Amino acid sequence: MSTFGREYRVTTYGESHCKSVGCIVDGVPPGLALTAEDIQVQLTRRRPGQSNLTTPRDEKDRVEIQSGTEFGYTLGTPICLTVQNQDQRPHDYSETDHYPRPSHADWTYLQKYGVKASSGGGRSSARETIGRVAAGAIAEKFLREAYGIEIVAFVSSVGGVAMPRDRELETVHRVTRGEVDQTLVRCPDSATAAQMQDVILECSRDQNSTGGVVTCVVRRAPVGLGEPCFDKLEAVLAHAMLSIPATKGFEIGSGFLGTQMRGSEHNDMFEAAGTGLRTRTNHSGGIQGGISNGEDIYFRVAFKPPATISQDQTTASYAGGEGVLAARGRHDPCVVPRAVPIVEAMAALALMDMVLVQNGRTASRALLKPVPSELKGIKPI
Amino acid sequence: MSTFGREYRVTTYGESHCKSVGCIVDGVPPGLALTAEDIQVQLTRRRPGQSNLTTPRDEKDRVEIQSGTEFGYTLGTPICLTVQNQDQRPHDYSETDHYPRPSHADWTYLQKYGVKASSGGGRSSARETIGRVAAGAIAEKFLREAYGIEIVAFVSSVGGVAMPRDRELETVHRVTRGEVDQTLVRCPDSATAAQMQDVILECSRDQNSTGGVVTCVVRRAPVGLGEPCFDKLEAVLAHAMLSIPATKGFEIGSGFLGTQMRGSEHNDMFEAAGTGLRTRTNHSGGIQGGISNGEDIYFRVAFKPPATISQDQTTASYAGGEGVLAARGRHDPCVVPRAVPIVEAMAALALMDMVLVQNGRTASRALLKPVPSELKGIKPI
Amino acid sequence: MSTFGREYRVTTYGESHCKSVGCIVDGVPPGLALTAEDIQVQLTRRRPGQSNLTTPRDEKDRVEIQSGTEFGYTLGTPICLTVQNQDQRPHDYSETDHYPRPSHADWTYLQKYGVKASSGGGRSSARETIGRVAAGAIAEKFLREAYGIEIVAFVSSVGGVAMPRDRELETVHRVTRGEVDQTLVRCPDSATAAQMQDVILECSRDQNSTGGVVTCVVRRAPVGLGEPCFDKLEAVLAHAMLSIPATKGFEIGSGFLGTQMRGSEHNDMFEAAGTGLRTRTNHSGGIQGGISNGEDIYFRVAFKPPATISQDQTTASYAGGEGVLAARGRHDPCVVPRAVPIVEAMAALALMDMVLVQNGRTASRALLKPVPSELKGIKPI
Amino acid sequence: MSTFGREYRVTTYGESHCKSVGCIVDGVPPGLALTAEDIQVQLTRRRPGQSNLTTPRDEKDRVEIQSGTEFGYTLGTPICLTVQNQDQRPHDYSETDHYPRPSHADWTYLQKYGVKASSGGGRSSARETIGRVAAGAIAEKFLREAYGIEIVAFVSSVGGVAMPRDRELETVHRVTRGEVDQTLVRCPDSATAAQMQDVILECSRDQNSTGGVVTCVVRRAPVGLGEPCFDKLEAVLAHAMLSIPATKGFEIGSGFLGTQMRGSEHNDMFEAAGTGLRTRTNHSGGIQGGISNGEDIYFRVAFKPPATISQDQTTASYAGGEGVLAARGRHDPCVVPRAVPIVEAMAALALMDMVLVQNGRTASRALLKPVPSELKGIKPI
Repeated sequence: MSTFGREYRVTTYGESHCKSVGCIVDGVPPGLALTAEDIQVQLTRRRPGQSNLTTPRDEKDRVEIQSGTEFGYTLGTPICLTVQNQDQRPHDYSETDHYPRPSHADWTYLQKYGVKASSGGGRSSARETIGRVAAGAIAEKFLREAYGIEIVAFVSSVGGVAMPRDRELETVHRVTRGEVDQTLVRCPDSATAAQMQDVILECSRDQNSTGGVVTCVVRRAPVGLGEPCFDKLEAVLAHAMLSIPATKGFEIGSGFLGTQMRGSEHNDMFEAAGTGLRTRTNHSGGIQGGISNGEDIYFRVAFKPPATISQDQTTASYAGGEGVLAARGRHDPCVVPRAVPIVEAMAALALMDMVLVQNGRTASRALLKPVPSELKGIKPI
Repeated sequence: MSTFGREYRVTTYGESHCKSVGCIVDGVPPGLALTAEDIQVQLTRRRPGQSNLTTPRDEKDRVEIQSGTEFGYTLGTPICLTVQNQDQRPHDYSETDHYPRPSHADWTYLQKYGVKASSGGGRSSARETIGRVAAGAIAEKFLREAYGIEIVAFVSSVGGVAMPRDRELETVHRVTRGEVDQTLVRCPDSATAAQMQDVILECSRDQNSTGGVVTCVVRRAPVGLGEPCFDKLEAVLAHAMLSIPATKGFEIGSGFLGTQMRGSEHNDMFEAAGTGLRTRTNHSGGIQGGISNGEDIYFRVAFKPPATISQDQTTASYAGGEGVLAARGRHDPCVVPRAVPIVEAMAALALMDMVLVQNGRTASRALLKPVPSELKGIKPI
Repeated sequence: MSTFGREYRVTTYGESHCKSVGCIVDGVPPGLALTAEDIQVQLTRRRPGQSNLTTPRDEKDRVEIQSGTEFGYTLGTPICLTVQNQDQRPHDYSETDHYPRPSHADWTYLQKYGVKASSGGGRSSARETIGRVAAGAIAEKFLREAYGIEIVAFVSSVGGVAMPRDRELETVHRVTRGEVDQTLVRCPDSATAAQMQDVILECSRDQNSTGGVVTCVVRRAPVGLGEPCFDKLEAVLAHAMLSIPATKGFEIGSGFLGTQMRGSEHNDMFEAAGTGLRTRTNHSGGIQGGISNGEDIYFRVAFKPPATISQDQTTASYAGGEGVLAARGRHDPCVVPRAVPIVEAMAALALMDMVLVQNGRTASRALLKPVPSELKGIKPI
Repeated sequence: MSTFGREYRVTTYGESHCKSVGCIVDGVPPGLALTAEDIQVQLTRRRPGQSNLTTPRDEKDRVEIQSGTEFGYTLGTPICLTVQNQDQRPHDYSETDHYPRPSHADWTYLQKYGVKASSGGGRSSARETIGRVAAGAIAEKFLREAYGIEIVAFVSSVGGVAMPRDRELETVHRVTRGEVDQTLVRCPDSATAAQMQDVILECSRDQNSTGGVVTCVVRRAPVGLGEPCFDKLEAVLAHAMLSIPATKGFEIGSGFLGTQMRGSEHNDMFEAAGTGLRTRTNHSGGIQGGISNGEDIYFRVAFKPPATISQDQTTASYAGGEGVLAARGRHDPCVVPRAVPIVEAMAALALMDMVLVQNGRTASRALLKPVPSELKGIKPI
């Protein structure tokens, strides 16, 4: 449905042509300093029309906090966030509306709900992600203030042009959002970025589109996040990421490449670090047994080429007749750069929920008498 | 936590050395013919000790239905399924217990819960998957009887030895479980299977381990499953798969490779089929806009090499001191063949929940007056 | 939290002095004819200022549909409903703000959240119920169109003045909303209504307040609603009702009086009715074993006297010092008449969720082969 | 469904004649000392056959911990608890099985699920409450060890014989379980208890049954429990209580009587107490605005007379024909004494979930910088 999370719960609403889009965020810890500007930053990063690499519409997208804060602080009550739609008229019917767009949500939405929003998939519009990004920005602010957590996503591949894997892994451990935003394509490796831009411009010229990969890292997450067995941290991250429109894959740490390794290479050996342990390598991607281990949590998300292209496409109408669909207007040839703040937002939402649940456990356990030392892995002599 | 699903809800329990493992399944439709044998089939397929490619312990694992059926039919009430553990003694402490196993759950479980099961990760044991497989078998039986749904998983890659991609895709559309089980490694391509076996035997000799990929297909799923926006079908499948121990990645349809394609190639054009539409190609993997479109749903799941190997490993103890951990006993060099029924089970659980929710919507909507035709995508003239 | 329901899910937001209040309703069946006017009717019924029996503020409360409908029909996507607040400034501090209002939520909210909304309890304001009433109106429209369900609540007691019990029970079975609204106090028994008005006017003169009881009936609910064991229909109704501000009790059917009866009197005997059965009496209140049986579902909800009164009250300040709190302004001496549409709304929300879940079960079960007749209670000869 | 709670989650299973009954409890804090004996105490208190006031069957009901503990401590993983059924054969059909028992769940279960357990309502059997009592005992142990919380329920009315209201309220504030168990009827007021016993024995002689009221108190609950708006503490308690078989009503604090009071009497004035505040009276029943305020939480639960009586009852068969149903065997004439530990268990479950959620909030908020003092209700000068 349209709700994500158990204790930090986000419910989004809105289609392309309704009055507004947005969300209600429930479970935000009280006492967090929060203004619309904290949220606007990420909304602006997801906005289209920032360059000729993305769709030229200028959507504005100013967020308004409807509830849940006073004097610049959260009250612990639900925060409703809204963004007005510019174009609020249901769409006029035209010739192309006879055709469900290939690989888009038009046909499946009609089959599922038995009705069809005039704006096609309606709810499958990228505008739905506004609510996610807004809610994610609040989560992120909490995570940063409470733990110093940094979440940074970047584009690691576009249409087959990919950062070298070792460069990608180095990048994971140190990249900042400022660095990511230095190129329009949001790839912090400038050589690769240039090639990616060429691919996107070529798609744009060809009225075509292409996909790509977003890599994301969460740094300084506390140890202990994730709720086995079904809500392992990577499972919830995968759920979060595959709920973003146009995604086709998710991998954590070594991912699909890790399947080719031997255990002796893949295992992350421990070493002492402060009062605890850390691992020398991080093929695990910061999660072991479904629980964060304090290392960088990094993962990759695959995005398919956007389905809406301006080329003529020979396909079938709703009624079954073959014909040619020619999409009007200009369309985004590659959504991956704009997906960067969406991936960051969904990561923040997943983490935030886990933080609240784990803190509830830890604080409750702390009220009990200590357990005998052998239950802590210390061998009784 | 240990519950998966909203309307078809599975809650698992059990560690390696407690009395029993199993689950409660709530929301099973009443009136389904069901005996223990329906469930045992898949439990037996997941059992270790079936060959020298997997761990030699013979766990037996006979399932017992505690509740929820009478005279061989489900009552619609919770079904509790239990499997006795053979070795129910908490484990004696030994030298190796001073070391958290690298890339295993020992250390993170201790950090998260503040206590340590004597059997290491305890709940992260593969025995936890018994409850999933049992619950999945019931879901699968319903899906088969109600819709003729077929769910078949197979091993498509082991330690870098992979079925050719085109062969894999052909296999997806026709393979049966019988064919999958014809090789020990559960790869239905016999040439590839032979090479996979060599890799596993080599790992076994070297006291090492390796990973692999399981590909799974769901055939004949009805159109309309999946609950956008957050519970898109692929998002729930990804959640389900990444909750399986040792998984590192998930991709649906064209997956990561699809990111390299152009929209014009990737788009699945429609054509008339019976009273509806189908797509000529299926890069979407049977899901568009988060909703099943009636085509085969196929996806791939990455499994890392098992963390427990018998080789000496230089690592740190819980107390932080460096030392050498030498795991005792024999260990499974590659879990992928045994993961096949677990992947099938999790697919069945994800689908089943979606079926109940969508049927509730459809049956409720059918009680209303029909909507005007323009809401169904038919242009008013 | 601020979400109610599993498949028909309402999330409310808003405090007294924020920009707007409202809700997101997820899970509304697609294809339901719906305009703002359908919702406004009940919002207007809950509005204060309708007479000198209730608080004189005129809040307006015009609802706006932000999303989820097109051309007057629901799309099956989340419906966001908003109502602007007239007074959006956080409140200035004054002398009385040093005192948590007795029996109000000021002190517990501060203790729970560690922050204090300037408008006192903030979220505990009666304005929060706007979202409930709006969401309930949609549920009610569906239930009426799909099943002919009628939900009618009325005031059966105010400050100790109560309708005679037998009159109350007769009323349950036939009363309409039109009849309820014929008296300001919303008691359809005119003699009792007149006495209730006297009590309320007396409280008003005395700067005091009083409580009362709302009785509610759901007629023509289908058989089979309710999800044992924990989500029995009466349990969910009780949850729904006790979540309304100022409620202190709930009873279904014979309720507390039924505890004094013998089983032989209390048991509702069956008799043939059409193709099924019905009961001759209805002490059960339309629910047996947690499941609706097709008879009228009726229950009673107790409301305490409003905590905010204009009389001087000797109490303690936040800092602990004793002092006199004199509430300013005019306050509602009895909320019970205004609670009528809120009780109706919460009943609709509870029912609606149960309808979707049960229809999912029934439609799914119908796909299976019929069960042997002995499983249907027909003795095999 | 059969799950209660969000973070402390109990799922029960089992009918009258299946192999076993019990539950899985997920979310138990790790490190709690726990043995089967801790649980058995309350199971034994709910066991029938303890006197001639209750049904003479001796069910034994020995609980077995299947998982989730080691060396007498909880691991934080799911705890499965099972109790064998003595009579595991599905029931033979007899003449009386043609008649759905009046006011029992036979008919509604059949209508809802389309199948009929041979043991009538099956899942509506009192044996289902074994899982609740077992899970509640664990929650209660945590609450006692962590906070010193005491939960005590007692019988305050049977068949119209009631403790005087003022006596009941005094009892609430001091009664112990030991005192409650001193009379068979579990009413700690010996004069009233004697009269209650007479009523029950009379019912027993007459092959009839009667209802009653259980009053319950939770002492020393921390301030701040309850999750407004929908999960107010009293709403969750009401849900919990009305999910117990045979319940018809719930009231908190002043309850239905409070509806007759004036605000000036009903309001609980504050006074300084230690570093905080407490209230001089407690008509609120320890909850204000849906949140515990540190005073005793007390409430009353109404139980109807048991539906199964041995008297002949003229009713209709499943097929609609009128006839006489004569229940065989001996039946419990009054369930109220046995309901005492069930009410306590459900109270513990409701509280426990709220504790985990609130501790998660508080611990998370504590990681932020302190808020300005005016947000804490302290007027800035």
